Amino acid sequence: MNHKSLVFSLQVKLMSPSTDDKDGDADRLRNGLKEIGIHNVEIPLHILRRLPDALRESSFEVKPILGAQGQGYRLIDMKKKSLYGIALDIGTTNMSCSLFDLDACKKVDTYDIENPQLCYGTDILARVQRSMIEDSGGLTDSLIEGINVLINTICERNSMGSDEVCCLVVSGNTIMSHYFLGLDVRNIPVTPFIPSINGPVFTSAGETGIKIYKEASVYVFPNSGSYVGGDIISGILCSGIQKEEEPALFIDVGTNVELVLGCRDWIVVGAGAAGPALEDGVAGIGKKAEKGSIFGITIYRDTKTAALRVIGDAEPEGICGSGMIDLVAELFSAGIIDQAGKFVDSGGGIKENNGEKVYMLSETRGKELVISEKEVQNFLRSKAAMFAFLYVFVKAVGMRLREIKKVFVGGSMGCGINLENAIKIGMLPDLPRERFIPVGNSSLCGAEMVLCNRNVLDEIENIRSKITYREMGEDPELLNVLQAGLFIPHTEPEILRG
Amino acid sequence: MNHKSLVFSLQVKLMSPSTDDKDGDADRLRNGLKEIGIHNVEIPLHILRRLPDALRESSFEVKPILGAQGQGYRLIDMKKKSLYGIALDIGTTNMSCSLFDLDACKKVDTYDIENPQLCYGTDILARVQRSMIEDSGGLTDSLIEGINVLINTICERNSMGSDEVCCLVVSGNTIMSHYFLGLDVRNIPVTPFIPSINGPVFTSAGETGIKIYKEASVYVFPNSGSYVGGDIISGILCSGIQKEEEPALFIDVGTNVELVLGCRDWIVVGAGAAGPALEDGVAGIGKKAEKGSIFGITIYRDTKTAALRVIGDAEPEGICGSGMIDLVAELFSAGIIDQAGKFVDSGGGIKENNGEKVYMLSETRGKELVISEKEVQNFLRSKAAMFAFLYVFVKAVGMRLREIKKVFVGGSMGCGINLENAIKIGMLPDLPRERFIPVGNSSLCGAEMVLCNRNVLDEIENIRSKITYREMGEDPELLNVLQAGLFIPHTEPEILRG
Repeated sequence: MNHKSLVFSLQVKLMSPSTDDKDGDADRLRNGLKEIGIHNVEIPLHILRRLPDALRESSFEVKPILGAQGQGYRLIDMKKKSLYGIALDIGTTNMSCSLFDLDACKKVDTYDIENPQLCYGTDILARVQRSMIEDSGGLTDSLIEGINVLINTICERNSMGSDEVCCLVVSGNTIMSHYFLGLDVRNIPVTPFIPSINGPVFTSAGETGIKIYKEASVYVFPNSGSYVGGDIISGILCSGIQKEEEPALFIDVGTNVELVLGCRDWIVVGAGAAGPALEDGVAGIGKKAEKGSIFGITIYRDTKTAALRVIGDAEPEGICGSGMIDLVAELFSAGIIDQAGKFVDSGGGIKENNGEKVYMLSETRGKELVISEKEVQNFLRSKAAMFAFLYVFVKAVGMRLREIKKVFVGGSMGCGINLENAIKIGMLPDLPRERFIPVGNSSLCGAEMVLCNRNVLDEIENIRSKITYREMGEDPELLNVLQAGLFIPHTEPEILRG
Repeated sequence: MNHKSLVFSLQVKLMSPSTDDKDGDADRLRNGLKEIGIHNVEIPLHILRRLPDALRESSFEVKPILGAQGQGYRLIDMKKKSLYGIALDIGTTNMSCSLFDLDACKKVDTYDIENPQLCYGTDILARVQRSMIEDSGGLTDSLIEGINVLINTICERNSMGSDEVCCLVVSGNTIMSHYFLGLDVRNIPVTPFIPSINGPVFTSAGETGIKIYKEASVYVFPNSGSYVGGDIISGILCSGIQKEEEPALFIDVGTNVELVLGCRDWIVVGAGAAGPALEDGVAGIGKKAEKGSIFGITIYRDTKTAALRVIGDAEPEGICGSGMIDLVAELFSAGIIDQAGKFVDSGGGIKENNGEKVYMLSETRGKELVISEKEVQNFLRSKAAMFAFLYVFVKAVGMRLREIKKVFVGGSMGCGINLENAIKIGMLPDLPRERFIPVGNSSLCGAEMVLCNRNVLDEIENIRSKITYREMGEDPELLNVLQAGLFIPHTEPEILRG
C-alpha cells in the first residue's frame, strides 16, 4: 500500500474492546491511528454513524481511508476495494485529467476535453466580464458539468464507477480555480486585483458538485494573486525549480506565456498574453493536440511537398502547436518563405486557392489543409512575443539567458516539439541543447505529485512564500525586441544567444 | 460584546486591499484574526463564496461569527443583528432548554417538554432494545422532531426566528447523546458496553437535522462510557467539584440516581436505578413539575387537611417530586402514617375511596387527588434506594458521610425541595443543613456554562480525565441498607448521620 498519497488507506489492528478496555469506537480508532503517528483525525458525523458496524464487521482490523487536510486528516470512508484519485488541470482552453490507482501509485489513464466555458468566450477576461454583469453561477455550472463529463468518461473507459474516486487534486489559474469552487471572481480583474482566497482549499466533492465519492477529498492549489495561479505553482513544483541551487528558467506556453526564473532562494514569475498563442487560434487549420492533428512536418527540398506526422496515425485534420513550429521552420528552410515570413514566389510549392496564395499541406478526399501568408505572420507575431517576454523578463531579473543552465519547457510546447526547429525560428533561445528539459503539461504533473505524495503540500507553501511577481507589459524594451522577433530567426540573432 | 461564548462575534478592522497589499479576501480575514490571537479558522466553502461581498459591503470592518471547535474555529457567518444560543438538556423523561443572548451573555427564557421518545417506553433500555431489533432511525427522528418543536416554541415565545440561533450545546446521558447524533446505540447495552464515541462532538446544525441556522455550531458533551454520560459531566462542571480541595458530594436524581464524590484530584461516579424514581412514576397523581403540580404541602395537625402550594398558583392537578417528599413527611408528622408508611387508623384524615383507604389532598370541581398506602410505600422504596446507594457509594470510596463538607443536590429534587422534610424521612443524610447546596438542573446548567464560555471546554476534558466509575448494584451491603430504609426515617437512624 502507498501511505504517502493525499488520500490513503492503511491497515490498523485495534484492540478489541473488553471490560478492561472500554474506549468508545471513535476514540479507539483515533488512539490506534495516533500510535502510528496520525494525529488530529476529523470524523464526519455520517461516517461516525457507520463506524461501530464497520469496526465489528472487520473484527477491529480496519482499513480506514484518510485524507490529509490542513494540520490533520479527515476520515473519508472505512474500506474500499481500490483507491482511485484524479489529478485535474483546468486550462482556459483545455481540461486534462489523469486517473491514478492510489494503492499502487500508478497512472491508469489520462484524458482531456475542451473547457466548456469556451462558449462564453475564448478569452478568460470575456468570461469574467460576463460574471460581472450577470450571475457567475452559469460559468461555474458549465465548468463543473464539463469536469463531470471528463471524469465520467475516464472512469467509463477504465470500467469503473466515478464513485470509486476518493481524491481530486485541482490546479488551474486563479480565475479557473475560483470558477471551480464557485467563488466570486468580480474583484480579480479590477485594481488592486484581489482574489477571494490565496491559500489552498481543502473541501469535499459533495461541496463542489463534482460527482465522485461524495466524501472524497478535494484539494485546490493555492495562488499567489490574480496573475500567479495554482497552475504556475503546480508547474514550478513539477519542474523542481524551488530546489535548484542555481537559477533555472521555466517556460510554459498555454493560452498565455508563463515565465518563471528561480532557485531555492527566490522565485520570480512573469506572465503575459502572447497574442493568439501557439494553440489552435493561430491558423484556420489550427487544432489542439488530439487524434488527426499534425504534430511534425518535413518538407522535401526538391518537390516542396510535405511529409506529415499525425497523432494516432490518422487522416490529417488540422495542425497543433508543435506542428506549426515545424511547418514554419521547414517552410523557411525549404525557401518557401523568406526571413519576414513572406512567400517567395520563385520558391515553388505555393498555390492559388480561392484567390489567395497558400501552401498546401495535404489534400485527402477533397479536404485541403492549407496555410496562408497571413497565418504564417500571425504565428511569427506569437513566437516573437514569446521570445520578447522571455528576453525582457530574464534581463529584468538581472541575468543573461546564457547564464541559465536549465530551461524547463512545458505547456502545449512541452512534449513532442522539435527543439532544433523552435530554436531555428527564434522562438526559444539558442542555448546548448542539453540545457532544455521538456516537462509536458506541468500543471497536471504538479497536481499528480500532490495526489501521490501529500508531503509536497509543505513544498507548495514553501514555493508560495518565495514567489514575487513581475508585471511584463510595462517594459519599454519589450516592443523593440518583439518587433525584431517578427523575422526568422530575429533581426539581431545575437540576442538569441543571450 | 461577549468574546468568551462558544460561538461569538467580534469587530475586526481589516486593512483595505491596495496595490501594496494584495492578500486574498479569506487570507486577509485570517491574518486579521491571527493578529488578535484567533488561529486555525476553517472557512466553509459556501461562506467563502459570500466573503468578498461581505467584506466590501462593510468596508473591511467586519463582524465575523466564529464557533470554537477542537483546536481552532469555524467561520459560521459574517454578521447578524443578534447572536443567540441554546443550551439543551436531553433527559430520558424531559428535555429542557434555555435561550441565551450571547452578545450580552444573558438568559432570555427557558422551556421544557417531554422527551417524545416516551412513546417508545419510559425505560431507556426498552428504547435501546427497540433499536436493536429494528432500525434506530425512528428514535432519532422522533427526538430531533421533538427538539425542533422545543426550540421553535421557545423562539416563538420570544418573537424571534429559530434561524437566529447560531449555537446549540447539548448534554444528555450517553444513550440520549447517541440518539441525538443518530449514532449506533446497539453496543451500549451489551458487555463490554461500548459507545460509538466518548469524546466531544463538534458538528453543524445542518448535519444533525436541528432546524436552527444551518451552519450553527453544535457541541455535544463527551461521556465517560455507557454509564457516565455527558449529563453527569455537565452536572459536575456545574457543581465545580473538580476544583474542590476537599471531597464534595453531588447527588442528582432524575429518572436515575447519579452520585459523584470527588475533588480536584479524583472523581468517582456511581449510578443506579432508584426504582420508580421521584418523578411522576411513583403515584397515580404523580406529575412533572409544571403548572398545576403540587410542590409543597402542610398538613394541619388538628383537621388533618392539607394546605397545598401549587405551581403557577393554579388548580392542583397532580403532585411532583418535591411535593411527594413534603406529603410523606407531613403524613408522618401528623400521625396519619406510621414509621412503616402504613395508615394509622386512629390517626384520622383517612377516607374510603372505591373500597380503598386513601388520604385526600384536594377535591375541586369533583376531581379528587388522593394517595393510597401502596403509593406511599412505593415512594418509601424509592427514597430507601436513594439513601442506600448514597451510603454504600460513599463508604465504598472509603469515606463517611459526616466527613463530607459540601453536598450539591441537583435534578428534579434540586430546587424547591424542603430540605428539612427530605432529611426527616431519611432520604438525605442528617448532616448540618448549611452543607447542602441546591444546583437545580445541573446538566442544563453545565451546558449553559459551555454556551457562555468556551474556556470550560478544557475544564470538561480535565473532568473526563479524572473520572472513574463504580458499579453500584453489586455491593452486598446495599440490600441491607435499602431494607432498613423502608422505614421513616430508617430502622438504624444512626447511619443517617454517616
